[in-house]
This record gives sequence, C-alpha cells and structure tokens, in this order.
Amino acid sequence: MTTTPSPSDRFTFGLWTVGWTGNDPFGVPTRAELDPVEAVHRLADLGAYGITFHDNDLIPFNATASEREQILKNFRAALAETGLKVPMVTTNLFSHPVFKDGGFTSNDRSIRRFALRKVMANMDLAAEMGAETFVMWGGREGSEYDGSKDFAAAYDRMKEGVDTVAGYVKEKGYNLRLALEPKPNEPRGDIFLPTVGHALAFINELEHGDIVGLNPETGHEQMAGLNFNHGIAQALWAGKLFHIDLNGQKSIKFDQDLVFGHGDLTSAFFTVDLLENGFPNGGPHYEGPRHFDYKPSRTEGYDGVWESAKANMSMYLLLKERALSFREDPEVQEALTTSGVFELGQPTLAAGESTADLLADTSSFEDFDADKAAERSFGFVRLNQLALEHLMGAR
Amino acid sequence: MTTTPSPSDRFTFGLWTVGWTGNDPFGVPTRAELDPVEAVHRLADLGAYGITFHDNDLIPFNATASEREQILKNFRAALAETGLKVPMVTTNLFSHPVFKDGGFTSNDRSIRRFALRKVMANMDLAAEMGAETFVMWGGREGSEYDGSKDFAAAYDRMKEGVDTVAGYVKEKGYNLRLALEPKPNEPRGDIFLPTVGHALAFINELEHGDIVGLNPETGHEQMAGLNFNHGIAQALWAGKLFHIDLNGQKSIKFDQDLVFGHGDLTSAFFTVDLLENGFPNGGPHYEGPRHFDYKPSRTEGYDGVWESAKANMSMYLLLKERALSFREDPEVQEALTTSGVFELGQPTLAAGESTADLLADTSSFEDFDADKAAERSFGFVRLNQLALEHLMGAR
Amino acid sequence: MTTTPSPSDRFTFGLWTVGWTGNDPFGVPTRAELDPVEAVHRLADLGAYGITFHDNDLIPFNATASEREQILKNFRAALAETGLKVPMVTTNLFSHPVFKDGGFTSNDRSIRRFALRKVMANMDLAAEMGAETFVMWGGREGSEYDGSKDFAAAYDRMKEGVDTVAGYVKEKGYNLRLALEPKPNEPRGDIFLPTVGHALAFINELEHGDIVGLNPETGHEQMAGLNFNHGIAQALWAGKLFHIDLNGQKSIKFDQDLVFGHGDLTSAFFTVDLLENGFPNGGPHYEGPRHFDYKPSRTEGYDGVWESAKANMSMYLLLKERALSFREDPEVQEALTTSGVFELGQPTLAAGESTADLLADTSSFEDFDADKAAERSFGFVRLNQLALEHLMGAR
Amino acid sequence: MTTTPSPSDRFTFGLWTVGWTGNDPFGVPTRAELDPVEAVHRLADLGAYGITFHDNDLIPFNATASEREQILKNFRAALAETGLKVPMVTTNLFSHPVFKDGGFTSNDRSIRRFALRKVMANMDLAAEMGAETFVMWGGREGSEYDGSKDFAAAYDRMKEGVDTVAGYVKEKGYNLRLALEPKPNEPRGDIFLPTVGHALAFINELEHGDIVGLNPETGHEQMAGLNFNHGIAQALWAGKLFHIDLNGQKSIKFDQDLVFGHGDLTSAFFTVDLLENGFPNGGPHYEGPRHFDYKPSRTEGYDGVWESAKANMSMYLLLKERALSFREDPEVQEALTTSGVFELGQPTLAAGESTADLLADTSSFEDFDADKAAERSFGFVRLNQLALEHLMGAR
Repeated sequence: MTTTPSPSDRFTFGLWTVGWTGNDPFGVPTRAELDPVEAVHRLADLGAYGITFHDNDLIPFNATASEREQILKNFRAALAETGLKVPMVTTNLFSHPVFKDGGFTSNDRSIRRFALRKVMANMDLAAEMGAETFVMWGGREGSEYDGSKDFAAAYDRMKEGVDTVAGYVKEKGYNLRLALEPKPNEPRGDIFLPTVGHALAFINELEHGDIVGLNPETGHEQMAGLNFNHGIAQALWAGKLFHIDLNGQKSIKFDQDLVFGHGDLTSAFFTVDLLENGFPNGGPHYEGPRHFDYKPSRTEGYDGVWESAKANMSMYLLLKERALSFREDPEVQEALTTSGVFELGQPTLAAGESTADLLADTSSFEDFDADKAAERSFGFVRLNQLALEHLMGAR
Repeated sequence: MTTTPSPSDRFTFGLWTVGWTGNDPFGVPTRAELDPVEAVHRLADLGAYGITFHDNDLIPFNATASEREQILKNFRAALAETGLKVPMVTTNLFSHPVFKDGGFTSNDRSIRRFALRKVMANMDLAAEMGAETFVMWGGREGSEYDGSKDFAAAYDRMKEGVDTVAGYVKEKGYNLRLALEPKPNEPRGDIFLPTVGHALAFINELEHGDIVGLNPETGHEQMAGLNFNHGIAQALWAGKLFHIDLNGQKSIKFDQDLVFGHGDLTSAFFTVDLLENGFPNGGPHYEGPRHFDYKPSRTEGYDGVWESAKANMSMYLLLKERALSFREDPEVQEALTTSGVFELGQPTLAAGESTADLLADTSSFEDFDADKAAERSFGFVRLNQLALEHLMGAR
Repeated sequence: MTTTPSPSDRFTFGLWTVGWTGNDPFGVPTRAELDPVEAVHRLADLGAYGITFHDNDLIPFNATASEREQILKNFRAALAETGLKVPMVTTNLFSHPVFKDGGFTSNDRSIRRFALRKVMANMDLAAEMGAETFVMWGGREGSEYDGSKDFAAAYDRMKEGVDTVAGYVKEKGYNLRLALEPKPNEPRGDIFLPTVGHALAFINELEHGDIVGLNPETGHEQMAGLNFNHGIAQALWAGKLFHIDLNGQKSIKFDQDLVFGHGDLTSAFFTVDLLENGFPNGGPHYEGPRHFDYKPSRTEGYDGVWESAKANMSMYLLLKERALSFREDPEVQEALTTSGVFELGQPTLAAGESTADLLADTSSFEDFDADKAAERSFGFVRLNQLALEHLMGAR
Repeated sequence: MTTTPSPSDRFTFGLWTVGWTGNDPFGVPTRAELDPVEAVHRLADLGAYGITFHDNDLIPFNATASEREQILKNFRAALAETGLKVPMVTTNLFSHPVFKDGGFTSNDRSIRRFALRKVMANMDLAAEMGAETFVMWGGREGSEYDGSKDFAAAYDRMKEGVDTVAGYVKEKGYNLRLALEPKPNEPRGDIFLPTVGHALAFINELEHGDIVGLNPETGHEQMAGLNFNHGIAQALWAGKLFHIDLNGQKSIKFDQDLVFGHGDLTSAFFTVDLLENGFPNGGPHYEGPRHFDYKPSRTEGYDGVWESAKANMSMYLLLKERALSFREDPEVQEALTTSGVFELGQPTLAAGESTADLLADTSSFEDFDADKAAERSFGFVRLNQLALEHLMGAR
C-alpha cells in the first residue's frame, strides 16, 4: 500500500490553510501572500482532489467587479488546467469589523441583513463552481458576557438566517447542501452552537433542515475536551455528517489547527478507522471529501507549507493502512467479540418483544444474578493495546 | 426582600446530596450515613419544597421486599408529616459493578435488559410518589477507548432503551416526563450525550421524544468549558428544559458539585436572571423546581452539611434579588437598548419579506456601507459592569 | 468609601491595553490606532497612577532615530503635564517575524543575539523613564512539537539570556528589577516557564536571580486551570512577587484578557483581599502597582475602551471595600478561628522541639485517636458563604 | 529488538496499581482485593524489576503489631523468592478521614503532628526495605475555597514538614532521597504545589533541599494542560528528576491513570526518547526506575489487570525501539540540523564575550537585518512528521 496521495483519495484543502500567512494575536504575518493560482497548481501536484475557499480568501472584501472577474478567470483557468475540483465553498462572516458582533446574530439588524446577502451572493458563486457543500462557520456568533445577548432571540435569528439562505438554495435549485461548523469559543468568549451536539439539535428546529447538516472539525470538538469520534459518530447516526474538517489539536487551549495526526494521534487513528471501515456492526458511512482545515506552523517558510500539506495526506494514508490491518487481524476480531462490541449491535429487546413480555421475563430481573453478571471482564485494555500496536505498525 | 427560603421558592434537594458521606477516589467516607427520614425533616425545617432520590439512595440494591416496604413506610410518613414533596425520582445505573460498562449501552445484552427492568420498576415507584419528572443520568454509558464500543450501535441501544421506558410510562399512563442529564466525562473517559446539545439532538431521534427533555447541570456543562446559560437557553428554546440541577464548578476538572454560586458566581447570577426574569425579549420560561445537585465538602461534619444546604438557597435568593434590581434599573434598560439586546428580538427580514424582496433591497448590500456600520460601539463592557455592580449590591 | 480612583491607588495600565485595536486570529482591527499621548491624558483623567509599555507600543520597530526622538519627546511632555508615571517597561520579542521561534531561545543564534541587544537597548530607555520594574514575557519561547527543541539547551539559553541582561542592569547601576511573566501557551503550543511555579524554579538557577522575580497574570494561570491566588501566594512567600497583571479569564481557553473581575469574580475578590489585607497570619505583603493587562472587547468603540479602563479600577475598589468589611466582621473572625485558619499559623513542632522529642511524644502518634480527630468539622463552606455575602454587599 | 520486558529494563509498579479494585466517585469496587504476595509473584513473572507501595497498601491503617509483622514476613518472603526489589516507598496521607484537610498542612495541628509521625514511621520501613526513593504526594494538601487556608502559613507548614522528615532521614543515615509528586487538583479543588514547577520552586526554599527532588506523573501535568516533557526536562535540568510516574491521560479532566501510551501517544514517544536518548545536545540523564502509576480500567477482571500491566511495559519497549531508530536515522539528523536543534546547544555569547563586547558587535543589532533573518524556515513540521513516521514504524 502506498502513502502517495492521488485524486481518488479525495483529499481537499482550504485555500486559507496553505494560504495562511501567519498572523496571530501576538504577531504579524511571517509569510508572503500566496497566489490562489499557485495554490491550485501546488495542491494538484501533490495529489489533492480539490480546493475550497471562503469568498474573501479568493476575492478581497472591497474588490471591484472587474477585479473579481479577473481573479475568478485566473482561478478557473488553473482549475481547468489541473483538474482540481471545488467541492465546497464557505463565506467569511468574521474578518471584517462589521461582523465584530456576528453576522446572522449581530445585535445590529442592518448587519444581519448584510450577512444574509453576502452568503446568498456567495452561494451563487458556490453553485457556479460546482460545489456540493456550503459550509457555515459562525465564529463571531456568540458573546463574552451573558448579558450582552438575548439567547432565545439569538437562536431565533440564527434559525431565520439559516432557513432564509437554505430556502434560497432551494428556490434557485442549487445542488448545494449546507454544513454548519461548530466551535466552542475563539474568537468569541462563547460561540453559539458550540459542539456537534448543539448544532445537530439546532438543525432539528429548522424549516429547511433537510438540506442542512454538519461539518465537524477535529480540533473544535477537542477544544471542549470532547471525543471527536463520539461526535462524528452521532452526526453520522443522525444522517448529518455532510462534510468533515480534519486537523490536529493538543488538549484544551486556543485553536491550534495542526496537521492531521500531529495532535492526538490515537484519536486520528480511530477517526480514519471510522471513515474508512465504518462502524463494526455496519450502519451509516461517510462518503464526502477528506478535507484538511489546518494551519502550517508560523515558523515555516513555503517549503514547510508544502511539506505540511503533504504530511496531512501521508498521515491519513498511513493511518488508513493501519486501520485496515487492524480490522483484518483475526486476533482483533476475536477481541472485539470478547469485548462485546458485536453484541452491542444486537437489540436489547427480542424481535417483537413488548414491555409486557420483558416484564414477564424473570431472567431479566427477578432471577438475574447481578453479582455474577458483574464478573464479566470486558477486555477493553487488551483491545486498545491491539489497536495501538496496529497503529504503530508493530503487528 | 428576604433570603429565608420557603416552600413557595420550590427548592429541592437530592437525598444523595446532603446524604453524601464523603467517599472519593482517594478516600473513604468522612461522615456517617444519613437517615432519609432525618433528611426529610431537616430539609423541611430549612424551608425546602421537596426531596428527590435515586432508587438506591433510599432502598439498598439488595434490600428484601419487607425491608423495602419498611423503608418506604417510614419515608412516606416523614413526607406526610413535613409536607415535603418528591417532584423527581431517578435510577441508579452506575454504582453496582454490573453497570461497569453502562446500563442501556453495556456491551452485555443481559445487563441492558436488567437496566431496563430496573428503570421500569423505579418508574412505578416514582409515579406512586407523585413525581412529575424522571431523571436519567447515564454516567456509565461511555468508553475509555474508541475501539471498545460501536458508537452507532450504542446510540441505537440508547434510543431503544429510552423509547422502551418512555413507552412504558405512556402505557401505564403515568404523569411522568423523562429528563436526560448530560455529562462529558467522569466516571467514564467519555460519556455518550456529553452536553445539552448532544442530548437535545438525541431526543429528536426518539419515537417518544415528546415526553423526553433535559435536566442540565451547571457543573456538567462547565466541565467541558461550555457556557451553562447558553446551554439552558438552547434547551428552553427547544421546549425541553424539563428540570435543572444547580451547583458550582471551578473551571475544567473533576466534577466538584460545589454549592450553587460557590463556583462561577457571575454565571450563577445570569442563571438566576434567566430562570426568574426570562429572556429580555420574552419567550419560553422555566417553570420547574430549583433543584440542587451538590456535595457538601468532605471537610464538613453534619453541621456543615446543613450550613451548605442553607447556603444553596441563600445564594439563589440573594442572586434573585440582585437580578430583579438589575432588570428594573432604568440605566440598565437604556444600556440594553444601546447594546442592541432588544434589537436582536426583531426579525432580520421584514414581515412577509421574501428573499426576492431582500435581494431587491440595495440598502442591505449594494449600498450598505460596511465600514460605517462597523463603527457601532456595542457597549457590552459597560452593560456587564452594570450587571456586576447589581450582583455586588453596589447600585 | 469611594470607588473613584486616584493616583494613590497606584493603578497602572499597559499602553497596549487601551491601545489594542482589536486584531485577532480571525479578524482585523476594529478600532483606529490610539495616540500614546492621548492614552496618557485619558488615563490621567480617569485617576490612574501610571502607564507602561513595550518598546514597540510606543516606537515602531523600524522607526528612525529622529522619529524615535520625536515620539519620546511628545510622550515625556504628556507625562510631565499629567504627572503620570512609568513604573514598568517591557520589551516586545514576539510581534516581528524574526521572533517566530522565540528570542532568547530561538534555534537561530543570530536571533538570540539580536534579542539580547533589543532588551538591553530597551533597558536603557526603561531606566531613563524612571521605571523600577522590567517585565519579560517570553511568549514565543516554546514549541509546538517536542522534537523541535532541545529543552535543556533551551533552559540553558534562557538562563544565559536573563543573566546577561540582568548583569547589564547591574553593570549600569540601573534601579531596575526584572519580572518574568509566565504563560502556559498561546501563541506557542507550549511556552517555556508556563506557570508561576516554573518561573520561580528557573529564577533559582540564575546567577543574578536576586534582581529577578515574577509578574504573574490572572488569566495566564487560569488558562492552565490553576488557582491564581495560590500562585501569587507562593511568589510572595518566596519574596518574588515583583509586579502583578490583573485581568479576567473564563475557564481554560484562549487568552481572553477581560476586565479585572469580569472573569472569575470570586477569585478576584480573594486576590484583592490578599493584596490589600495580606495573609491572615501576617507575612510578606505586595507593595507594587496594581497593573491592569487586559483588552477592551473588540465590539467596543473608544467610548467602550474608556468605560472598560474605568471598570477595572471600579471593580478593584469595590472588591477592596468588600474585602475590608470581610476581614473586619467579628463573625468572620470567629469563623476563621473555627476553621483553623489561624491554627495553621502555628508551627507544627513546638519551639525547639527535635525529631527525637516528637518521637517521644506518644500523644502525637501512639495514643493519637485518628478516628476521633477525623470528626472535626472544618466549617469551610460557612466561611466561604460569609465571604460571598461580603463580596455581594449582603452583610 | 524484543518487547518482552526483563528486570534489566527496571520496570516497577505500585502495589496500588494492579491492586486497585475499582472504586470511584460513582461506584464500588468491581474486583476483589489482591493479595500483595500474589502481586509480587505476578509482576515478577511478567518481567518487572520492582514493586512499590504506600504503607497502607500493604499494612491496613488499624493493623496490630502482630498483623503487621505477619504481612511483612509474607511480603519479604515473596520478594526473596522472586528477586523483585522495592526501590520506592510512599506514605498514604489521604485515605483516612483524619486527613480530610491534609496532613502536613491540615488546619489542625494535632493532625499535622500525626502526619509527620506516620511518615517517619514509614521511612523506617522504607529504609529497611532497601528503598532509595521516598515519594510524597500531598493529595489532600490544598483547598476548595480561597478563604479556608492561610496560603503563606500552608507553605510554611509544608516546608516545616518536609524539612522535619528530610532531617530525620539524615539523622538516621538512611539512604533515601525524597521525591515530591505534584498534582493540580483532585481530590482537593486546588492542591498546593500543583505542577513540576511549583514543587521545584518549593524545594529551593528548604533547609534539606539537597535530598529532595521530584516524582512527576504524566497525567498530573497533563491535567493542567501542561507539556509533560517540558516539565520533566526542567526537573532534569535542575538536577531534580529523582523518580518518574508513567501513565496515560486524555486531555484536561479527572485523573484517568490509563496505561502508559494509552493517553497521548506522541507525548509518550517523546518521553521515552528523552529518558532513553537524553537531550540532543547532551546534558543530565534520568537513571532511575521506569515506574508505572496507572489504574487497570474498572471494566476489567484480573485477566485484564495483568494484560494492562503487560501493556505498560510493551508500550514502553516499543516506543524505545522507535525512539532509537528515530535518533539513528540520518535524515532525522539532517532535519535536526536544519531546524537548528543543535544550534540551540551553542551559547548565545561567544566564549568570554562580555556585554560590552556584545554591544560593540554591530552585526548583532545595528547591522542586523531582521527581515532577512525572519525568512529562515525552521522545518519543524517536517521534523515532527519524521518523528511520527518512526513512531508508527513507517520508516
């Protein structure tokens, strides 16, 4: 098996990832701007499948119509030349000062209206580019102080906003699905829809929720100390894993956006295992691109930028190789059985069993020997050790 | 205004709170067992409205039928004598070793069946006690290692389990609503349904979700670094805040279960402000008991236990007084207006405005001066300072 | 008692605090640059005692000698006019790309040499300005990957650097003490000397450690989930609390730099109690300025900037008032006695007691009734409730 | 290379690790008590070098003299039979209720005296057992509320206590060194000496600090979000890494005590790299046992307990193999050079260079081209990718 990527691996990168110039809260850029055309060529050369962007990654906020046209012309030409796709597009509602209190939930109504229009305009471009997913990260939708927002009104406005733009997609007949990207905090003190769970719950309140799903990001869940694989599993289970952002994060702190696998390696192994091999008992399966949303460390020049882009793909392919060997190992299969992993796939009730039937089954309760049942050794440590040995290529 | 509690304040306590004897991962109990009958009398004397319990707080796991009957007889007598209510009951699916891998999602099917039966048996008791809410905290439903569970199967079994017991409530015609209690971790490395959001999302997948809501706990959300008030607001907004567990937590660490207000005091102020005063622009309102789920510090004797029970209620009443003065202050009302808190209550679209209308409104986009709009000063710091001065009784 | 600040309160502000224009990892500035001269006048008008700065807050990195002279001339004139002091100066070794891998511990030796020179040059200015404290925050001294640094070599270089510049201070006869400012992470993945403890330990390895102490910051310790008051107490106990940065932080996340008291209010109360009232049994006392190192929220215009500057001082003065009343309350004194707070001030051994004497005292061990002694109720919850009631102005 | 452990690997285990029966804050034991004699035999069979214990792991708190003697006789016989060593002993000052407010820093003086005596008695046993290290974990030395302790007095008492028992060691002529074990919280809300740094700083204040060092634990540093390898490096650099506790932790939460390598695998790789290969530029080297302080998951029976014990050693040996190949790889050596890892080993000043010399070197400042120097690409991402590929056995 090779760890050299090819378009069939469906690896995609944000233009803002390889194009991040290194500004952070305490420092200015350490790298020059990257020409989007060069990004397209470089990523294609490295074996990527696609490139994604926020409107203002490609087209400056204040670009004139002709500047816009020229930029798009060059960008399209590069795509045509390389065969790189644009499977996803997203809108920047966070960089310009006008969004300092958010877009869809800004306390200022005129700004909320502007935000809707900016998204709608960008949806036109996304559709034109052939994107199938439209990501929405509401990084400025939140608060620092509990008194500064009416939270119910904020959820109302968020719903109104998402339903409006989702309705627009339907009216236009665009082949686009929306994917919300949760994050707990940063840049706001607390962001609305902070986790996979909150965003899933929110979607259920929408009028057009049928075309709205999620774009979970490794590091964003881990910034809340949550298990990313539990999260994407719940999204898959709900039929809502529309897109995914892979990267690395070390513990609970600022958003690090490390290379995939350069954060919690073991978690990354199980992410790839889930994406490639699915649940042990079957069930929903992720079909979209493997999208990297990371930042090349600020200490790197452009040589390091391209090394980091390669590293994301190499890590994924290496972990895929190890995850496949993990599942194929007969000892692992036996350990999974011993641990009851397949037994969890069996319904708790028998086929057609009613609560009355269950109540009548004295073996389930009256005659159940809890102390005896408690003796079962689940063997989870051994199973985990087997996983780690596969991850380490030691079996 | 008084900070002396009375039953009309609807303060309730878990029997396991004042009855916690102080065992922790590194030490044995520091206090003797508390007789449930004494707990009832003491709490009634202090002005509480009700008491709640897990089945095994009151009735030992291995009690015989006659022991059970005697315990319940004494407990009911104490309730009758004092007028204390039992508005909520919950089941312990975590202490006995049989639940070491969970109840509804244990990898062992016979244990899952036992767990269902244990809950159903306890629902009979809850209904008999006149409880209106049945809380389910799945503290052992989770994993330490991503390989030890089939996550989709786990969500399937959780759904099957909750639907089974919720169906039982309907069959029996009990006046009970179920309230799920999220927690991110501890005792498991990662617990399923770790936050308010994940649990809300899960309920949407249920067959009997109409009688299933949430019981969020202050510290449990804060253990994930999440804003508790954002969380309960989303639950209220979804019509699912069925019950609430108030306590205190300091930052992200083990579950501290401090007295309410003894953790993040400012957050507690805004919790009370929301529970008592509702959202600034109106909307759903919490109507249930104010339930304290805390642990009297292990350093305290029983004098300290009752001081801590009083402290929960005093803190709530003090914060209520301050939250009322906060909302009534004309300067605060002016500041809320300046900050756009009421403006967020206005829909972003005009009444009946279509997306076509919005697109036709050039003031919303083509003629919108983003730089100018960005100059608005939201005044959130001043508003927060006003809130803190009310909290501190300094205005 | 008034909460209107005056210079005798010794409140100081960083020029970079009120001058922060709002750039963050996801957005550009929301406020125009602030003229340092205006900052001086405004802060003086608000009742501050002093202003502090990094070299490049005042003088741009690439300023010519004449530009530098003009800026300093204007700044000195403003100081003279207002009477504002400059009690502390610090050097920026983090904004310019040259410091992307640190200053004193950059893997590039020429950059380390440049960093030393930049600090030395700025020490000349600090001395000239009459500063008594020279703060060093090594925000870029750290790593993202454990392989990218030789840690022992890094500590060697940090020691070499600090000793070199401290030696320079002594050679020059400057009346300056150095104060290291710990921070666990951000902007680096992990920063060297991440906490008060690590920095204190480092100082003990220095040749010129006698003039090197600490400048702890509220939020920096809280970003590691550590208790700020435990930290500054250990620094005081070691005779090393040379300066202090007061601000606000909510739990473990990115560096928020909120207004003092707008983060963990209860912790802020005990910080002020310690700074103003000292330890209950006496001991070392902090004598320096009360320095605010915060960021006015990005949502605010300059009206909000000055409101936020005022809020820092108001919060401090309010908390001071409450801390004084806390200590003066006879019930609190009684509670402190009951809780053994004064008893902890008594040595464990009697005066002149040897280990042989202790071994001979059978009451200490052989005849000690541990079960009986364990019954003591420490009354910590009641004591904390008293503190919170004073904090809330409710007693 | 083999991953089968042998005594020459110097692996040691706490008796309380394999002997942990599974009680936690929400559940009772899931495993029967383990006979210490069996523990000795089993660990010896698995290839361990030694076993360590708290006094009360082996001898119950209330054991009579004859019970004590019988237990010790059996234990010594097992040691003699197997050849297992006892390189470290530690005292339990946390389980019994008498220590609910701590031992050395309890607010109750009689308890402080008892704690000193209990430690001294246990030191006699440690010396008799041939232990060389005496670990002290002050898990109950701390507070939940900032008002409940006089912090300076607490540090005074801690110093008095440690100096007393260290003085006793010297008086007795025992061949013992003391090793303090830091932990940030749990079971106390905040524990004194919460990190490697704080404990190192504390040691510097001791009279007998020469025989006092550290016993850092992987998970304890990671519970504060700190980098464990930075921490042990600083302890090594200060000559104070006397002992080490290896285990696993996933992010900031309750103390998980997972198998070594089952938490943050990449961090574990660099821990082993440091312990086995030392710093890249040489310097102090750890020479003590590799001690595992972990808990076999509560879901496991005794089969799983022994699997988990094996897993700790296998992980260490696997990581050792990978760390050796990492350092030996010429491409890695080249990458280390490119990244400046060896350059950091060079002093910043030339041999004998004074500050005057440095000031006179215009190439260091006046003629230094910071923009040019900033262009250096440090290549840290590539180096980290190389490390991960070695860790994964992919090179």
